[in-house]
Amino acid sequence: MRITVLAGGVGAARFLRGLRQAAPEAEITVIGNTGDDITLFGLRICPDLDTVMYTLGGGINEDQGWGRDGETHRIRAELAAYGASPDWFTLGDRDFATHILRSQLLAEGRPLSAVTEVLCRRWRPGVRLLPMSDDPVETHVVLAGPGERRVVHFQEWWVRMHAETPAAQITASGADRARPAPGVLDAIGAADVVLFPPSNPVVSIGTILAVPGIRAAVAAKTVAAVSPIIGGSPVRGMADACLAAIGVDTSAAAVAAHYGPGLIDGWLVDDQDKAASDDPALAGIEVRALPLYMRDLPATTAIARAALDLALELR
Amino acid sequence: MRITVLAGGVGAARFLRGLRQAAPEAEITVIGNTGDDITLFGLRICPDLDTVMYTLGGGINEDQGWGRDGETHRIRAELAAYGASPDWFTLGDRDFATHILRSQLLAEGRPLSAVTEVLCRRWRPGVRLLPMSDDPVETHVVLAGPGERRVVHFQEWWVRMHAETPAAQITASGADRARPAPGVLDAIGAADVVLFPPSNPVVSIGTILAVPGIRAAVAAKTVAAVSPIIGGSPVRGMADACLAAIGVDTSAAAVAAHYGPGLIDGWLVDDQDKAASDDPALAGIEVRALPLYMRDLPATTAIARAALDLALELR
Repeated sequence: MRITVLAGGVGAARFLRGLRQAAPEAEITVIGNTGDDITLFGLRICPDLDTVMYTLGGGINEDQGWGRDGETHRIRAELAAYGASPDWFTLGDRDFATHILRSQLLAEGRPLSAVTEVLCRRWRPGVRLLPMSDDPVETHVVLAGPGERRVVHFQEWWVRMHAETPAAQITASGADRARPAPGVLDAIGAADVVLFPPSNPVVSIGTILAVPGIRAAVAAKTVAAVSPIIGGSPVRGMADACLAAIGVDTSAAAVAAHYGPGLIDGWLVDDQDKAASDDPALAGIEVRALPLYMRDLPATTAIARAALDLALELR
Repeated sequence: MRITVLAGGVGAARFLRGLRQAAPEAEITVIGNTGDDITLFGLRICPDLDTVMYTLGGGINEDQGWGRDGETHRIRAELAAYGASPDWFTLGDRDFATHILRSQLLAEGRPLSAVTEVLCRRWRPGVRLLPMSDDPVETHVVLAGPGERRVVHFQEWWVRMHAETPAAQITASGADRARPAPGVLDAIGAADVVLFPPSNPVVSIGTILAVPGIRAAVAAKTVAAVSPIIGGSPVRGMADACLAAIGVDTSAAAVAAHYGPGLIDGWLVDDQDKAASDDPALAGIEVRALPLYMRDLPATTAIARAALDLALELR
């Protein structure tokens, strides 16, 4: 069986760990969001790709869900001693090594997809991990509020500002000119089913879908998606701030309606949100309710299994 | 008083620490060798500039004479886990931070001299540290021996091969097209005296002198130099291997003769080498013998004081 998954960071990585357990024989291709990517200190950082790679490769910091296990922060302290900025993005020493090597390989002219493959040779994530595009796409946030219209990189809004300043608009800068990375459209086309983990619908899944060609390829397949909203709140992160920026309510039903029946076929919601199945806006989407907190690997495996089963049923 | 010093790495850095003590009121400009510079993992590394900066700034690993104090090696271990090469050049985590910042600033288009100034704002070395040139110069070694003529970067020969394979030739690649960095010729021209610390005469002082314009500027000044050879052996490092490559004996007298009376005016040798003062090849060079081992700061200060005094006398 071939499963293709569009993936953000922490939520997707955990879901994928469950999916690997739920479907150990499946050939899983992961199309990772690169809109969060940022260049800091001259190094190219791909937070979502790394979170998936470290999590599936056994090198993740389990407590925080991102970054490396057993991490130290000596380089960061040194850069601060030099007065180098920014100081708001936490990069550990082990993590720096990944960015150093990635940047070196990119500078040698290799595309991000090839570089990701090199990095994955070490981590053996058990899935094929592809960036959505080899072309640079960066999610930018137009800040709402008084004064001049100010645009910041998504990471600055998310990490430095904790998404506390409302966003007037969120744009995937460069997405319109980006091409899907080699293998991306093939992996979607060849998939038996496509799954959306409980990733951010705006800045993770939404950004991947913004790369020309990907949305249409996904829409042609049977797609089951897992709600990242439980009982009116994001399970993790600040997806509500992103949804507000695009005028979508923070509810499981509203997110499904936003994706639309033209894109997703099945929608897994938490038991708390089972009323979504009666929502007329979700006509044409099969809604199924179950416990959706990925509290441990067995619970996560059950969720992944349910998403896969739903997609297979709807084919 | 204005003193300008041509400097390699460890020996020069220690000498400069003594000179700062010996002449606390002097304005000292250090022209650092950049021929040892190398790009590894996409990062630009300037070993001699850093050794001077760390030593005078109080951040050096005192035992080894290069690299940072309190160093760890986590990035290096990570890069090795990725199978990245080379693995023979030891870079500590703290040191990596310097190279990351330098590379970022260089990539932004700043010349090495400006970048060095930024780095020195943190270290406050108490001297003005200038790279010999902002243009890339790399010392390359043509290996002697059977088989094809093979050229390696100086660092590969020095660090990986421990200079055990004889060198047929040592070249400062790029030196012929390099321009002295801004301030270099002015600092030499304005100097009351120029000093050569006990640096490697071939790959440190020799490389600096190979940048067009520097040799002539130095030759026009009163120069006192400290022998890096004591009793027929280099005090540190493998200068003998470098001298052999250019056909110069490993002796204090031979090195002075190599520099020549057209370049240096005074020559400090160790007591063991006092016979050099009778060497006819050193006619025109004032030779003075004293204990030359820089075993601690007082001993080093005495040597620096002697070099300065000799130069001032010969003006």
